[in-house]
Amino acid sequence: MQGLHLMAELEGCAPARSLMSDVGALRETCLVAVRRARLTVLGDLFHRFESPGGVTGMVLLAESHLALHTWPELAAVTLDVFVCNRGVDRSAAAQAVLDELARAFSPRHVRAQRLQRGLPHRPA
Amino acid sequence: MQGLHLMAELEGCAPARSLMSDVGALRETCLVAVRRARLTVLGDLFHRFESPGGVTGMVLLAESHLALHTWPELAAVTLDVFVCNRGVDRSAAAQAVLDELARAFSPRHVRAQRLQRGLPHRPA
Repeated sequence: MQGLHLMAELEGCAPARSLMSDVGALRETCLVAVRRARLTVLGDLFHRFESPGGVTGMVLLAESHLALHTWPELAAVTLDVFVCNRGVDRSAAAQAVLDELARAFSPRHVRAQRLQRGLPHRPA
Repeated sequence: MQGLHLMAELEGCAPARSLMSDVGALRETCLVAVRRARLTVLGDLFHRFESPGGVTGMVLLAESHLALHTWPELAAVTLDVFVCNRGVDRSAAAQAVLDELARAFSPRHVRAQRLQRGLPHRPA
């Protein structure tokens, strides 16, 4: 298995829409980004915390997963996009999803990390 | 927001039970591990691929998330456990979940990574 895991921490978020706490809007934004990148949605799960109103969500992909968590009280968001690159290089799709979602939050600061996942397979 | 993200790539997996492709058994193993570590389950989503029978799954936690993907044809698994450590240090709980799940697959090789997530908050 070989894959690419993109992570970003967003700070100073000031989205035009209430993406930090509107679970429906955030879910829709994620699904649009994933589908635009031609990744395959298997299911999704989003939850809004009553107080202070953050949202935590995941999209299960045929190619692996997307996860994000918002902290409106800190104007902060974490993003994870993980794609399996076995057979097909989906790095550009993963980056497109991460970039689109990061832009949606209009963050003042972004800390991004790019990790190669997996081990080269050795016969048992 | 500050958090800890634990990742592991498992190779040469030979679980006693059919955890690599039995979606019910894998889901149950994940939920037991998470609850034993006193993390709070908000929901979960698991999917089994028809061919070659791998499982992909996520558990949404009040403290962030767990994600795992199995590749039975490669005897490989990826694990992710991400916990928010704001206010309470849940690092030991995250490590306990990762360790319990990794053990369940009896891997021959493990590559683990431990990442600190988040940025110290600066007032906007």
